[in-house]
Amino acid sequence: MSLHTNTPLQPPSDAMARTVTGGPIRGSYKIYSSPAGWPQLRVPFRKVDLSDPAEAPLQLYDASGPYTDPGYQVDLSKGLPPLREPWLAARGLEPDTAARLAGDGSHRGSTPVCPAPLTLRRGVAGKPLTQLEFARAGIVTEEMAYAAHRENLGRAEAARDAAERRADGEDFGAAIPTWVTPEFVRDEIACGRAILPANINHPELEPMLIGRNFLVKVNANIGNSAVSSGVAEEVEKLVWSTRWGADTVMDLSTGQDIHSIRSWIMRNSPVPIGTVPIYQALELVGGDPLKLDWPVFRDTLIEQAQQGVDYFTIHAGVRLAHVPLTANRVTGIVSRGGSIMARWCLAGHRENFLYTHFAEICEICRRYDVSLSLGDGLRPGSQADANDAAQFAELETLGELTRIAWDHGCQVMVEGPGHVPMHKIKANMDKQLAACGEAPFYTLGPLTTDVAPGYDHITSGIGAAMIGWFGTAMLCYVTPKEHLGLPNRDDVKTGVITYKIAAHAADLAKGHPAARVRDDALSRARFDFRWEDQFHLALDPDTAYAFHDETMPKAAHKQARFCSMCGPKFCSMKISQDLRDDVRAMEAAPCGDEAMAPVAGGLHVVGA
Amino acid sequence: MSLHTNTPLQPPSDAMARTVTGGPIRGSYKIYSSPAGWPQLRVPFRKVDLSDPAEAPLQLYDASGPYTDPGYQVDLSKGLPPLREPWLAARGLEPDTAARLAGDGSHRGSTPVCPAPLTLRRGVAGKPLTQLEFARAGIVTEEMAYAAHRENLGRAEAARDAAERRADGEDFGAAIPTWVTPEFVRDEIACGRAILPANINHPELEPMLIGRNFLVKVNANIGNSAVSSGVAEEVEKLVWSTRWGADTVMDLSTGQDIHSIRSWIMRNSPVPIGTVPIYQALELVGGDPLKLDWPVFRDTLIEQAQQGVDYFTIHAGVRLAHVPLTANRVTGIVSRGGSIMARWCLAGHRENFLYTHFAEICEICRRYDVSLSLGDGLRPGSQADANDAAQFAELETLGELTRIAWDHGCQVMVEGPGHVPMHKIKANMDKQLAACGEAPFYTLGPLTTDVAPGYDHITSGIGAAMIGWFGTAMLCYVTPKEHLGLPNRDDVKTGVITYKIAAHAADLAKGHPAARVRDDALSRARFDFRWEDQFHLALDPDTAYAFHDETMPKAAHKQARFCSMCGPKFCSMKISQDLRDDVRAMEAAPCGDEAMAPVAGGLHVVGA
Repeated sequence: MSLHTNTPLQPPSDAMARTVTGGPIRGSYKIYSSPAGWPQLRVPFRKVDLSDPAEAPLQLYDASGPYTDPGYQVDLSKGLPPLREPWLAARGLEPDTAARLAGDGSHRGSTPVCPAPLTLRRGVAGKPLTQLEFARAGIVTEEMAYAAHRENLGRAEAARDAAERRADGEDFGAAIPTWVTPEFVRDEIACGRAILPANINHPELEPMLIGRNFLVKVNANIGNSAVSSGVAEEVEKLVWSTRWGADTVMDLSTGQDIHSIRSWIMRNSPVPIGTVPIYQALELVGGDPLKLDWPVFRDTLIEQAQQGVDYFTIHAGVRLAHVPLTANRVTGIVSRGGSIMARWCLAGHRENFLYTHFAEICEICRRYDVSLSLGDGLRPGSQADANDAAQFAELETLGELTRIAWDHGCQVMVEGPGHVPMHKIKANMDKQLAACGEAPFYTLGPLTTDVAPGYDHITSGIGAAMIGWFGTAMLCYVTPKEHLGLPNRDDVKTGVITYKIAAHAADLAKGHPAARVRDDALSRARFDFRWEDQFHLALDPDTAYAFHDETMPKAAHKQARFCSMCGPKFCSMKISQDLRDDVRAMEAAPCGDEAMAPVAGGLHVVGA
Repeated sequence: MSLHTNTPLQPPSDAMARTVTGGPIRGSYKIYSSPAGWPQLRVPFRKVDLSDPAEAPLQLYDASGPYTDPGYQVDLSKGLPPLREPWLAARGLEPDTAARLAGDGSHRGSTPVCPAPLTLRRGVAGKPLTQLEFARAGIVTEEMAYAAHRENLGRAEAARDAAERRADGEDFGAAIPTWVTPEFVRDEIACGRAILPANINHPELEPMLIGRNFLVKVNANIGNSAVSSGVAEEVEKLVWSTRWGADTVMDLSTGQDIHSIRSWIMRNSPVPIGTVPIYQALELVGGDPLKLDWPVFRDTLIEQAQQGVDYFTIHAGVRLAHVPLTANRVTGIVSRGGSIMARWCLAGHRENFLYTHFAEICEICRRYDVSLSLGDGLRPGSQADANDAAQFAELETLGELTRIAWDHGCQVMVEGPGHVPMHKIKANMDKQLAACGEAPFYTLGPLTTDVAPGYDHITSGIGAAMIGWFGTAMLCYVTPKEHLGLPNRDDVKTGVITYKIAAHAADLAKGHPAARVRDDALSRARFDFRWEDQFHLALDPDTAYAFHDETMPKAAHKQARFCSMCGPKFCSMKISQDLRDDVRAMEAAPCGDEAMAPVAGGLHVVGA
């Protein structure tokens, strides 16, 4: 379905066998703008100019990083510009000399570590280090101001009728402000209702927010597999998914070279990167869950934290006592991490070491400001298992762990299901808010039926839109290949676009004050037959163009005042516009024409 | 995305230049079964045998007609077997000799009328003719018994724990019975809460029900365009969409040969066919809305009713007084029929002739048992216009018309939007139920955002699932080409599958007693690594196979106890099953092992 008409950028390094996708997204160009009072910040947006002079250009949120900036020369071995470096340098952090970054047991393959320079840092005790600690101390960081500016997208345009737009939504207790100040961001982070995932060793990051009073975000999963190979190929997955709007990316790689491949991803990622460290730990013990232990896991955490990973999924909620609750399930335990830890617990009849060592995990995460993403290892894998005792027992534990993380100064979000029929979705949100003190919820779908393998981006997009509306802060995408195979490039794009739809539908329904600005601009373009404006405002301009070309390929058709579905005679919008012409004629007629008055009197032609 | 691995059936007639798709859907075969007490009825289902002897075969609802029966020889010029002929013959109907069927002004092209025989009938006054009249008279028709049997799909399998399943849903006031008796169907039709669209001149029809206490249904739109040509090509659109589950099909053809092409569709359709007669009427007056009048429209209605069209979309709710209410809209009037009638009203400053002649429309429809589908000509075409005064003013009128139709003995359903953000969807359902006396609601999506042209099957699938849950009886599909171009074969399939997902997700959420039978069977297959069972139970087995083949193409991989996503070491379901083996071992251990007791005591291995 998706088209790849974009200019590939050739990385200059000889070491790179392949290219990553770059250049502007069709119909838009990159701009940078600085929030008032923060001239040193350059916050990226995409800008779409429209063909009608009466229509103001539209700015769009931009997660794609420098790759869509034509002025940026890709060199994967140099990495992205470390835009946070001056901010971090001023914070009195100490150098981290523990040398895990040099490689370890997991680095068995032939891939070299990314040579991009990195000033390795760690936090010190007694001084604010994490965004949460800064927020609690009343300090607005550069990251907060940067992210606030991103969140204000469209709010100036919407300001005129913001009150009306707000009243239009149902926010289920969210409190989305008319204007996002850096202080509002600070307050949301301070109370744990939002996180700003930003490892101090990821200076290339463009800061963003995850919280239910901000735009709903989307995560895409990438990861190398047995058959994949090159470093550029892995980085391209990152670049490709963020190009279409992924706000964060999880690297779920397993296998050899996991450490060195991640180094390339980190140094070239403009978005927060999440990992599931238990995967690498399992590699280190030869793949046998029963051989896992705390020291191996601890060292893995430190290694990944030093690399700059922004959030860790930790399956500390899978407690020994929960495992029997899964025994009568139709689909047992479907989370990889969850099944690994359940087996570990049960085989030795012992408590999950991630749970017993959770305070130490927090200490490591705090030192680098790695956010915690509390994994739902017991999430349901089928409609039959949704909202069962195992799932909700774990959720209670995740609430307990949330508070421990907060006590350690760590930012934390909570992962959620999974497979859930529509009528059971809201209970998930309500219970999560109650159990976890409003920490951001981060869900996988949920899939609203099990009967459509091959279309699970859709079965889950339905659930994602709904739970996003109810308050979920970030939606983890599902691709059409879910349950069946490894997603290819088209699948990744389809998954991301589907989830951008879900997230945006959620923003609209919540009454986000600026969400409808884009819908309205596109709808006006549609009604005015400004075809190219319509395409440029679309989530996927390439596909919109290609579909239109299929039936009306000529350039002149892009000016046609009808479309191929109905033809000129049956075009409702054409007829509807003729209607307006009728009205114009009537309004120009003498007032004495009383028969017309009741109709014409009520008509106000849009744009007239 | 979709694959066409099905055997094409060669129609024997020389007149047919092309084939239509036939043969069984992969992994299933056709069966017929008779409801108790009705041995003369042969109701079709698809049956899926599963590889695990412990798993009962599963029956699936089958809208595909004889085309998926390997014993059926397609001959489009002969038409489908007229299975209702003996039922109709026994009802004392009179022959209809008005010869509009022979062709008229709309038959200007070169396509011959389908030569399949048809005993043309019309109703007589004073005797029950429509399914509504029979129902009110306390009579259960063959159609009702047939459709009841279809609706009982899976209920025997679910009966064991039906009470539990029912309790699981939220039905918003629907009253879905544990078992669908013919008498229940009669009662639902009698009170207008369901319709059984079945023109007496469509004897080839396999009866089905539209109502919120039955399975949620899906409609697909087809129609010839300027570029399309052959009759077989048009019939193939019908066959292709019903193959993937479309419960009804609307023929939205415009242009020449509209009458003769429809004759081929009618004689070869196992599902109810709907039309929008104003399109043909507009052709007859040369495409100028202002030249439309009642006589032209009346004759068109009679002609199409004689052909066997099962339901008519009538835009009688677009009243003169409503038109000004659309003037400030972002996207005006986006319904073709609505814009035609609005222009007609406004140009002459006169009331819509479909409204003023509505009683006569009902008389015609009653004579052939054509169901009325009251068009929402003022449905919103953008988020901005959702739930506005124009839309709801029309809805009130549709309620008024519903009662008039009922007074004339006509079956009636009501069409709904359109473009609606999630938080405004439920109000549409609630208002429709209140305004229209619980007549079935039939909605187009709704699309929950305007920003994704190219993906509007998804933007609308979200809204369709939700409004289906809230009580909408039938969902009109939207394809990926919506707003951009004419759907091709793949688009039609993608649209139908997306809407089958929405409808099924709605059935699950409503607590339909048997809906989860299929999800559970598929999920068990998934957890047991019965790959082929999983594919055969899928809405689209072809795509599920193809996606699995992409990464694991070998036949042996269909027996693999892991999948390509995680590989053998990281497969959660493999680990989860190892966990069960651990438990089995524990349970076999001596009882004295007290340390194990608290865990093992709670474990009951599924299937053990």
